[in-house]
Parts: sequence; C-alpha cells; structure tokens
Amino acid sequence: MGYNFAAGPSVLPAEVLKKAQEELLDYAHSGMSVMELTHRGPEFSDILSRAKASLRDLMQIPENYKILFLQGGASTQFTMVPLNLAQGKKAYYVESGSFGKKAFTEAQKLAKVIDFEPISLGSTEQSGFDHLVSFASSQIDPEAAYVHVTLNNTIEGTAIYDLPETNGVPLVGDMSSDILAVNYDVTRFGLIYAGAQKNIGPAGVTLVIVREDLLPQVEIFSSMMDYRILAENDSLYNTPPTFGIYMAGLVFDWVKSLGGVPALEENNRKKARLLYDEIDQSSFYQSPVKFEEERSICNVTFRTNSPEMDKKFIAEADQLGFKNIKGHRSVGGMRASIYNAFPYEGVNELVKFMKEFEEKNDL
Amino acid sequence: MGYNFAAGPSVLPAEVLKKAQEELLDYAHSGMSVMELTHRGPEFSDILSRAKASLRDLMQIPENYKILFLQGGASTQFTMVPLNLAQGKKAYYVESGSFGKKAFTEAQKLAKVIDFEPISLGSTEQSGFDHLVSFASSQIDPEAAYVHVTLNNTIEGTAIYDLPETNGVPLVGDMSSDILAVNYDVTRFGLIYAGAQKNIGPAGVTLVIVREDLLPQVEIFSSMMDYRILAENDSLYNTPPTFGIYMAGLVFDWVKSLGGVPALEENNRKKARLLYDEIDQSSFYQSPVKFEEERSICNVTFRTNSPEMDKKFIAEADQLGFKNIKGHRSVGGMRASIYNAFPYEGVNELVKFMKEFEEKNDL
Repeated sequence: MGYNFAAGPSVLPAEVLKKAQEELLDYAHSGMSVMELTHRGPEFSDILSRAKASLRDLMQIPENYKILFLQGGASTQFTMVPLNLAQGKKAYYVESGSFGKKAFTEAQKLAKVIDFEPISLGSTEQSGFDHLVSFASSQIDPEAAYVHVTLNNTIEGTAIYDLPETNGVPLVGDMSSDILAVNYDVTRFGLIYAGAQKNIGPAGVTLVIVREDLLPQVEIFSSMMDYRILAENDSLYNTPPTFGIYMAGLVFDWVKSLGGVPALEENNRKKARLLYDEIDQSSFYQSPVKFEEERSICNVTFRTNSPEMDKKFIAEADQLGFKNIKGHRSVGGMRASIYNAFPYEGVNELVKFMKEFEEKNDL
Repeated sequence: MGYNFAAGPSVLPAEVLKKAQEELLDYAHSGMSVMELTHRGPEFSDILSRAKASLRDLMQIPENYKILFLQGGASTQFTMVPLNLAQGKKAYYVESGSFGKKAFTEAQKLAKVIDFEPISLGSTEQSGFDHLVSFASSQIDPEAAYVHVTLNNTIEGTAIYDLPETNGVPLVGDMSSDILAVNYDVTRFGLIYAGAQKNIGPAGVTLVIVREDLLPQVEIFSSMMDYRILAENDSLYNTPPTFGIYMAGLVFDWVKSLGGVPALEENNRKKARLLYDEIDQSSFYQSPVKFEEERSICNVTFRTNSPEMDKKFIAEADQLGFKNIKGHRSVGGMRASIYNAFPYEGVNELVKFMKEFEEKNDL
C-alpha cells in the first residue's frame, strides 16, 4: 500500500469509492449504472437535487445563491466570470500564485473582444509567489464588478484565511483546492467556483455558486457560457457530467458524516501542523512560504538545501509508497497535498520518513 | 430486468461496466482508483495514449488529424467551431434538426462579437424536420470555412448516410449520436465532434477530431476554447475528465473486440430494420420520417394515430421494462434509441410488444 499526495486528481474517500463500486452496475435497483441514467429521468433528478441540498447545507449557502454543476474546470471560469459579471465595468485581480495570474491573463484576452477593464492589484511573482499580495480596500473602485482571489495557491502552498476587505465590491473566489476543506463564509462572496478533483469528486465537474443578482443582464455570446441560461435550466441546459455529480453527492454525504466542514478543517489543520512542525524544527527542510499565517493547510510545500537532495528525497519516498510528492514542475521541491480525504496516518508516516531521511542525509 | 432505450446518457456495454467495477478501487495494481490518478502521471498518460490510438485505428483517422478529449458537450462546440475555424470567413449551416438549428443559432450569437458570416443552407423546421435539407455544391462559396452538418438527428430520427458534396469546402460534422455506430469516411471532414454519452462512454467527455491545417492562426479569446492550445497540450492544458476518458478507452476496446465499426454498423442496421419492418407492415404505427433512406439506424422514431394512444403505449411499455421509450418532449411520439451497446434481443422484445399492443388496441 501507499499514500497518494497528488495535487489533483487526488485521493478520494475509501467509503465513497466502495459505495460507487457496489452500485456501479445497478443504481438504486434501477437495473442501470448511474452512467446509463438519462439526465431527464427521476433517478438522476434525485441525485442532482440531493447533491445541491447537501452542499447548500454543508457550506451554509443562502437561498439567493444558485448552485451550478458545470464542466471545463476552473480554467473555463477564468473566461466565464468576466464575461458574465464584468461587462462595462472594472474587475480586479490578485496575482498571488500561478492560477491567479492565469485568471488575470485570460481576463486580459477576453477584454480584447468584450468591453471591460481587468486591473491587477499586484503580483508576487518576482519573489516566486512566496507570499500573498496585500492591498487596501481604498484601492477598489466601489463601482467595480468584483475582486478576484485564489483562496488556496495549489502550486505555491499559500492560502488566504482572512478574507480581504473590498470596499463593498463582491469577492469572486477560485476555491478549487480548499472548498469544503476550509470553512469560508459564503456570504462574503458574489461567486465561488471550484474544479471538483481535489475535495469534491472526480475530475470533470466544476462547481459554481453565484449570487442571483449577479446573473448577467446582457446577452452572452455562447449559451454554454451564460450563467443565467445554465441557472434557469438547473445545470441541465445540456447533458451534465452525471457520474461526476453522483460522486460529488457521495462525497458531500461523507463530509456530513464526519461532522461537516468545520470538523474537516480542524482535522486538516492538525495534519498540516504535523508537517509544518517537522519543517520548522529542522534546519534540513525549509518552507518556501514567507509568512507562517499564509501557509496552506491543503498543499504543504517544502524543500531541502538543494535540488539534488530534493530529487533523492522524492525518489526514496516514492519507493516507500509516498506517491506524487514531487512539487509542481514550475517550482520544484516537494509538495504534500493533504486534502479532506487524505488520512492523518499518511501524514504521520511521511513525517517519520522525513526524520529518517534527514538523519541519513544531513551530514 | 429491462431495456434502456434512452437517447443519451444511454446503455453502456455490460463488459465495460464490469471491468470498470472490478478495477474501481485499484487500477492496474496502482493501489489507486482511476479517479485518483494524477493526470500528469504515467498511468493516466498510458490510458490517454491508448484511447487515442484505439480510436485512430477504429475510425481510420489519418495522422494529420488531432484527437482531443474535451469537456462541455456538443453544445460547447457550437461556439468553439466557428470561433476557431471561421474568423473572417463564411460558414454554412444545414438545419435538418433541432441540434443543427441550435448550432446555427449559437453561431449567430457569436457572430455579434467575432467577425464571420454564418449562412443557413436551409431548414426543414416547417415540416417538423421530417426530412433532410438538400443543397447543391454550387451554392457553396469555395472560400468558406466549412459546411456544418448534424450526421444523425437524435430527436427527429433522421440521418445523413450519403455525405453531401461541398465544392471543396471542409465538412464539419456533429457526430454525437452515431460516431462509431456508422462507418463514415473521416477524410471527408475537416472536423468531427461528438458528446460521449451515446456511443463512447459516460457523459462529460467531448471528442474533437480536427485536421491540423484547420487549427486557428489567430488568437482565441479563451485558452480553454483554443483548439491549438488544447492540441499542443494533448488534451492536458488543464485537468481532463480522466475517468470518462478511461471509460471511453474501454468502450473503444469493446468495439474492436466485436469487429470494429463496420461490424457494429451492420448490427445496428439489423436492429433498426426489425423496427422499421414492423412499422412499415402495420397501419397502426407510423414513422414521422418522410424518406426511407433518411431514417436513422440509431434513433428510431414512431407513433400511433393519436397522442393518447402514444401515451398508453409508453406507459405499458415502461411497466414491462421498456424504459425511456418516450419521444423527445419537443416532438412527442416514441423513440427507440438503439446505439452500439443496445442489444438485439431488446429490439426483438420491443417488436413483440408492439405487435401485442397493436392487436389489443387497433380496434
């Protein structure tokens, strides 16, 4: 056996996979696999409405927010968000990591054909995104459409735990890597989006939670990118990723069974603390993150004193069953992605290995 | 037990579902579910490249065509096709069914922000799309970007089996409901796209097969809609729908094991003939399709003399386990969707029931 530290797609709850396996050929005595159910029938309709209700409950999403199950990943939202929300307005971007930068770049691309003004509130790229951009509420034009933030920077291992003040302008949050893992206040956001493949379910489902008053008033040039059309059709404008939505529903039930998001956040903090304590008490390992309070509890990045030693660490870890601990190719080092479904024992075992590796190699 | 006549998502091969079930918790001794595999690792890389190679083989796709596994369904391609292929040009649309009409409508929406000219070659909507639009090659400007056709009209039950001449302009084909079920000549097309949920696998995967010289030369306003970026990244620009691609690969293997596309087409023709023979020899049932040669072998539409009798037929059929035989809400009547994975026996049983129902009700 081993532990899968992948940043996404990543480990899923064993109970969820087992349940999916059990009913893969026959869902709820229908004689059909979930994958064979028509999306217009009563069985799938039930799956979708229960998934929505569970998520609303788990994240305490008020009734004036729509929940959409879409496709295309967070990367598609980089275009859909400004297209739907920003026409004729300013939209602010915070570039504290690679994905925040991408979101801004895509907004700039779109601004060549659609009238809106994407503005960067700053970038920490020059120092390798080793800390978060800070900005003052007074920098925000109160007439702007939104302030876009990436809650958790998967690649760099930083995260926002204190939501910034934005002069009354709605926050738009890319929550791909810590949705359901950190207990954010949904009412602080105008829109939240997240790819499923870290804390929700298999890749291929994208969650969008949007405040009704932000649905577009203008015609959008593609029905599949129009939040209003997608919301009015309750995610069934065309065939949705039915099996992925079913899996997400099972994960939501699992989160609930463990005590909900606050309980999982507490557990995630414990797992992260184990690792950060080890990193801090050692001079062999370092965190590339500048400020302690900005360290991610979902993606713990660390490195040794040299890329060669990192390589050795990754190879030996892999041999022992610590899989996918290699940092993202753009930053190097190591990364332990320890989302909701990642077990505490796995972190414990990794820390043991880190100690052993240090002893052998810190000459 | 019963038979699932759903138009999509629809029945999947039993062997494929069983195999997926067997390895759902542990793919190829990795200790991980396919859903847990990182898309950048060797296991998924192998899944993707084998799926591509199988499809290339099955459809005899020449090397100068790229195979992309995307998200968003055919409906997203309604926008992506003109965005990538038609800028600065004319693009022709054939409106022989509801989805062909939708493709044209979406092109018109996009033409408000992007410079190109969508032109309809005609519509058969006035007669309820009961036959295909016919047009002459001489109507096509040879400088145009493409002629868009829907190969199989899922809702209406018509299909193109003789590809039209287009004055040297590439065909773009929405092959969502008969890909791998009919042996089309890929080299007649510049681009083919298809949602997976009828003949390929679970909903949430969209296949695009595009001739390299048609990849866009201009900047596209969204990276996720840019065929060149998606092709250069081999469908891995962002996280793809990994489990759906895995399932598609299993279905491709299954198609191969049965003798490939020509063998399946032959089998589909046999299944369809059973139904059409029954419809033709009876005065109780009618086909809404005007011309015999345009009848779909994938979606067999039929009706009785009255909507009330149709309703009775559907209800009794459902009771007996003939599921989802109701026609699309926009046209009424009945529809038997009998794609590749739908068994011959199921069609046979349905014909038996049709005879019995006629005897009892044709008073």
